[in-house]
Amino acid sequence: MQGVDLKSYARSVARDVDAFILRNVSGEPRELYDAAVHLVKAGGKRLRPMIVVAAAEALGAEREAAIPFAAAVEIVHTYTLIHDDIIDEDEVRRGVPAVHKVWGIPLAITAGDMLSAKAFEVMVKARDYGVPVERIVKAVETLSSSMVRVAEGQAMDIMFEDRMDVTLEEYLKMVYLKTGALFEASAALGGLAATDDERVIRSLREYGKCLGIAFQIKDDILGLAGVEEKIGKPVYSDLREGKRTILVIYALSKLDQQGREKLLSVLGRRDATREELEEAAELIKSTGAIEYATSIAEEYANRAKAALSVLPDTPQRRILEELAAFSVKRQV
Amino acid sequence: MQGVDLKSYARSVARDVDAFILRNVSGEPRELYDAAVHLVKAGGKRLRPMIVVAAAEALGAEREAAIPFAAAVEIVHTYTLIHDDIIDEDEVRRGVPAVHKVWGIPLAITAGDMLSAKAFEVMVKARDYGVPVERIVKAVETLSSSMVRVAEGQAMDIMFEDRMDVTLEEYLKMVYLKTGALFEASAALGGLAATDDERVIRSLREYGKCLGIAFQIKDDILGLAGVEEKIGKPVYSDLREGKRTILVIYALSKLDQQGREKLLSVLGRRDATREELEEAAELIKSTGAIEYATSIAEEYANRAKAALSVLPDTPQRRILEELAAFSVKRQV
Repeated sequence: MQGVDLKSYARSVARDVDAFILRNVSGEPRELYDAAVHLVKAGGKRLRPMIVVAAAEALGAEREAAIPFAAAVEIVHTYTLIHDDIIDEDEVRRGVPAVHKVWGIPLAITAGDMLSAKAFEVMVKARDYGVPVERIVKAVETLSSSMVRVAEGQAMDIMFEDRMDVTLEEYLKMVYLKTGALFEASAALGGLAATDDERVIRSLREYGKCLGIAFQIKDDILGLAGVEEKIGKPVYSDLREGKRTILVIYALSKLDQQGREKLLSVLGRRDATREELEEAAELIKSTGAIEYATSIAEEYANRAKAALSVLPDTPQRRILEELAAFSVKRQV
Repeated sequence: MQGVDLKSYARSVARDVDAFILRNVSGEPRELYDAAVHLVKAGGKRLRPMIVVAAAEALGAEREAAIPFAAAVEIVHTYTLIHDDIIDEDEVRRGVPAVHKVWGIPLAITAGDMLSAKAFEVMVKARDYGVPVERIVKAVETLSSSMVRVAEGQAMDIMFEDRMDVTLEEYLKMVYLKTGALFEASAALGGLAATDDERVIRSLREYGKCLGIAFQIKDDILGLAGVEEKIGKPVYSDLREGKRTILVIYALSKLDQQGREKLLSVLGRRDATREELEEAAELIKSTGAIEYATSIAEEYANRAKAALSVLPDTPQRRILEELAAFSVKRQV
């Protein structure tokens, strides 16, 4: 493992996790399973399973013992993408058509539902690799609670679209729930594949939670200032959907009356033209919102990194550290 | 327990399970949790939790040890109703507006997703009542696999609507997956709350599976010949949605060319008039489809009852036997 870089580690985890997922997510009717693995096959960064595997390996576990948990979190992530795209009426994801655009909304809802259950079915397989049942039960508790939180965050996000007065505090809570909670669970599951030590699990939770928040803030930034081909979905879709991102919240607090009205007149208008969207984006950028959001993201990334001090000094701990830095630096 | 009848047993289980569900399914945002418990509060028969509790008690377990599993299956059932109503565009359920009619499709999808995860979160609480972790892991495996099957059945049902040539065999497979699998899991979970005995669990599975199939066939019958106020949803909605029920499959196989064309001209037409629907229903009834379907349902109910011979002769075993009879006799 000496000198392994983030990229090749990511590749090797993705290979193992994808193989496990594709082996376990298959069956009849074929359309259901095709819909379910559509986004898995389309790519993605596999950040969550990478956190599971790196945390487990950093604590001395064999990789194969961590793979069922790693696959479970990626399966959960995939299901939330399928349902999110229906909810947000997004048509493109990971550079391919959204699941509901190919198979229709009824089958897309059902494919997401199947995956949500499948995550627990595959978790239990950790038993075959020697993970004690006590820890599997804790893992089920951890994953299910995080999924409840993800739904709470999703609900907050849905309701924010009708509100003009979302605060930074509410935004951060929503982001923790919608994104941070599954990262938090991923890090905890990696720990549970390896150890009973509650102190270690708690620190891993803190790592995952802060990493997830940093990651989502950067996602908001890329949604406004990213390159379409790299992020795999249309830029400005957050504006079109009226999402209360950290950038929008900050800009609304800094703009004068005229600027605020201008921005609000575009926000959430699904028929806004490219020109109007670009103008709104410039308005947001003019307030220094991107620099502000970046500083908050860096703060969380640093907190994530600091939480790792409880882990033994291993190459996989360094992978987790690099991941924290990557969450803010990335352009994809 | 001497001489307890089905009705009062059902009432007592419903009271305990509902209290547990309402205590555990609560949080913020309020709208999400209101949407999630809307159908729980609207009534329902609580058949699945009753199976869990009766099986556990028949095997000598304390009721409180079975309540987390019983709540889990009812929570799963509730979530499938919420998503099914979106998929089928149904507007009324249990005599109240469907969840998506009150809170909109995005929040209804999310409420279902939350419940699906919540089921596993509450299952784990069986640990606090002395159920060994080995059996909780088996219960997680059992419930998650059944939920995967429910999704497979739902997908088959969705795809049947575009097909004219669904066979009785395909129908029975779909019904087993969509309805039977969760009944099967309910009976198995009741067993797992009480015992490690694989032979007992296997027989309980058989009981639940056959009961679920009988129950669904009767549901199809009530959907055509039931009383609207009793079943809590509009009669004929299956016809309007073009569902390939056992009645439709049988009728299509018995009608002459003219009758078949007449029936197909109404089936799946959402704008069909009440008169057209009534005519189609009469056409189906004229083939003897209801008598045929009833005989198949009775066959499954008898198989369910026979599978109970493995249980000790207790009042709760008699409850399970009565439930098998009720699944076919019921008018609600």
